[in-house]
Amino acid sequence: MDTLTPALNAVEWVGDENGYLKILDQTRLPWEVHVLDCRDLETVWEAIRALRIRGAPAIGVAGAYGLVLGMQSGKDHSLEAFRAQLHTMADRLRECRPTAVNISLYLKRMESRALHLEAGPVEAIRLALLNEAHAILQENQTACTEMARHGATLIQDGFGLITHCNAGGLATAGMGTALGVILQAHRDGKRIHVFSDETRPLLQGARLTTLELMQAGVDVTLICDSAAAQVMSEGRVHAVFVGADRIAGNGDVANKIGTLSLAIAAHAHEVPFYVVAPMSTMDPELPCGDRIPIEERDAAEVTEGMGMRTAPENVQVYNPAFDVTDARYVRAIVTETGILRPPYEASIRKALSA
Amino acid sequence: MDTLTPALNAVEWVGDENGYLKILDQTRLPWEVHVLDCRDLETVWEAIRALRIRGAPAIGVAGAYGLVLGMQSGKDHSLEAFRAQLHTMADRLRECRPTAVNISLYLKRMESRALHLEAGPVEAIRLALLNEAHAILQENQTACTEMARHGATLIQDGFGLITHCNAGGLATAGMGTALGVILQAHRDGKRIHVFSDETRPLLQGARLTTLELMQAGVDVTLICDSAAAQVMSEGRVHAVFVGADRIAGNGDVANKIGTLSLAIAAHAHEVPFYVVAPMSTMDPELPCGDRIPIEERDAAEVTEGMGMRTAPENVQVYNPAFDVTDARYVRAIVTETGILRPPYEASIRKALSA
Repeated sequence: MDTLTPALNAVEWVGDENGYLKILDQTRLPWEVHVLDCRDLETVWEAIRALRIRGAPAIGVAGAYGLVLGMQSGKDHSLEAFRAQLHTMADRLRECRPTAVNISLYLKRMESRALHLEAGPVEAIRLALLNEAHAILQENQTACTEMARHGATLIQDGFGLITHCNAGGLATAGMGTALGVILQAHRDGKRIHVFSDETRPLLQGARLTTLELMQAGVDVTLICDSAAAQVMSEGRVHAVFVGADRIAGNGDVANKIGTLSLAIAAHAHEVPFYVVAPMSTMDPELPCGDRIPIEERDAAEVTEGMGMRTAPENVQVYNPAFDVTDARYVRAIVTETGILRPPYEASIRKALSA
Repeated sequence: MDTLTPALNAVEWVGDENGYLKILDQTRLPWEVHVLDCRDLETVWEAIRALRIRGAPAIGVAGAYGLVLGMQSGKDHSLEAFRAQLHTMADRLRECRPTAVNISLYLKRMESRALHLEAGPVEAIRLALLNEAHAILQENQTACTEMARHGATLIQDGFGLITHCNAGGLATAGMGTALGVILQAHRDGKRIHVFSDETRPLLQGARLTTLELMQAGVDVTLICDSAAAQVMSEGRVHAVFVGADRIAGNGDVANKIGTLSLAIAAHAHEVPFYVVAPMSTMDPELPCGDRIPIEERDAAEVTEGMGMRTAPENVQVYNPAFDVTDARYVRAIVTETGILRPPYEASIRKALSA
């Protein structure tokens, strides 16, 4: 599968404030490289909803640009109408996927940028919004680089690693979160071996993580999600690295379904379990993880996900897209500000106020 | 999916000692009911190897009949030649799938039956072998019924349950092991809800367990394997029931890949984890589970298992078909002799000598 060039971005803006957004359709990977040109908010909304773009940081960046696109319409608006439209469209993007918090934070930041500008003209606000989206993307790139630098110190030469879902370049605007750390260790010359969970139902691990790691020349082996504990019990795993969609004030972590299972298995095998996420993933307003909304997705993802129906007709399905991992299973949280350690109430609060 | 009648058997002998074996091809379920007529050992061997018939008790029974078929050839043999052929064919069947121990035990029993007969005539030994295979099937049926009776006492009205892979009628000659227990509780009028792990890579849970439970009118919900821990954390699970392919002398359990992960998650959530298996699953010669041979299967089961390729070409894959669950995670082992409790060294020894 040599179709994906390493330079391919999950998300990229083309042109000035009247430009458009390019989104790589990740549902077609690894089979086909198809880039979606998004010229309105609804196209971005659908791309996020259908997981054409996924990964909490990447959908945050796409949401910011989606708002820019949304505000390209209605050019004759008064400032008041402009602001009303801004809120409506931000709300529309916010409800697209409920679990990841980054998009919500970024949209709030975009709105706030618009509202704090001197009154008009509308064109100037529009340009300011685009620049804010650019800044968000740029900051995410920098955050990825910093997370990779901090996190790579946790990996020693000869380590076997497990990662779940895809927390790579495709999930961010930069080199990735969990996968960025792994790539950095590889670039630093450490010999590592990565086991990539396939990540049912949508196989982001099988389709995307293996692809990114193989392209980077990292030694990677695909396993079924359910085999992770067995690989640990064979003594082949020295650390687990995953991303996050939302982190509560106490360090509880919402991430792709299967993360909890992996964290518990790591704990039972005394394998350190690390979460890698930018500070934009923190939601200190939630005291603990049981308040995080868990998105439930369509049954067909489980019963018809891979080319043919895999279960009887009319079977009931429960398909939560995320789970919540209790902070007690998390050895450390790697952020762009450094490595946060328990107790997380204190370390997260300190990092947020820095 | 109304194609499977409840009366359909995993395995059934037709005729006298010159008859043949019918094997339901479970790889085609739930889409199609296709019964394979096996008239020689190699057809049975291929059916077991390709998982057309699976489940430790069912392949044990199929192996016994496979030996009968094998001995239909070479009818002009001397008694000595007959015995040599018997050993060769038993060895051939034994190496078919290495993890489950029942087939090995049953083949030894068949050989021993032949060797302890009075010297010839060969035709009489052949008939004795068929009758021994019939006895094995019958005993497995009875064992299932007894396991169901004992195990159902562990299930209370209103329980939510998880099961993994398929340990039902399709995996045995009777009503199943883990699923037999669940069906018995349902027949006893207890209101239960079952979460069926889909069981990657070959989806025995999605394809077979949902089918058996739906046909029996049991409330069942399909989940991805990786969602089991989340369902537990939501407080919806009161017990886990699984089958076994081999149980070591200390109670360590080899079972379908994913069982270890499920057992560890159950332990972390204080949900009792029960193994249901006939005494023929016991291998007291192995002091602990790390001596159990773990079958590694083809990469294509993971990368091309469901109608389309789901990973990049040339990706490395590790596909262990089983894992070993440490006895400390097992609350009890349900057998036809009763419910065995820790310490298992003692309780297994006692049950075997009863």
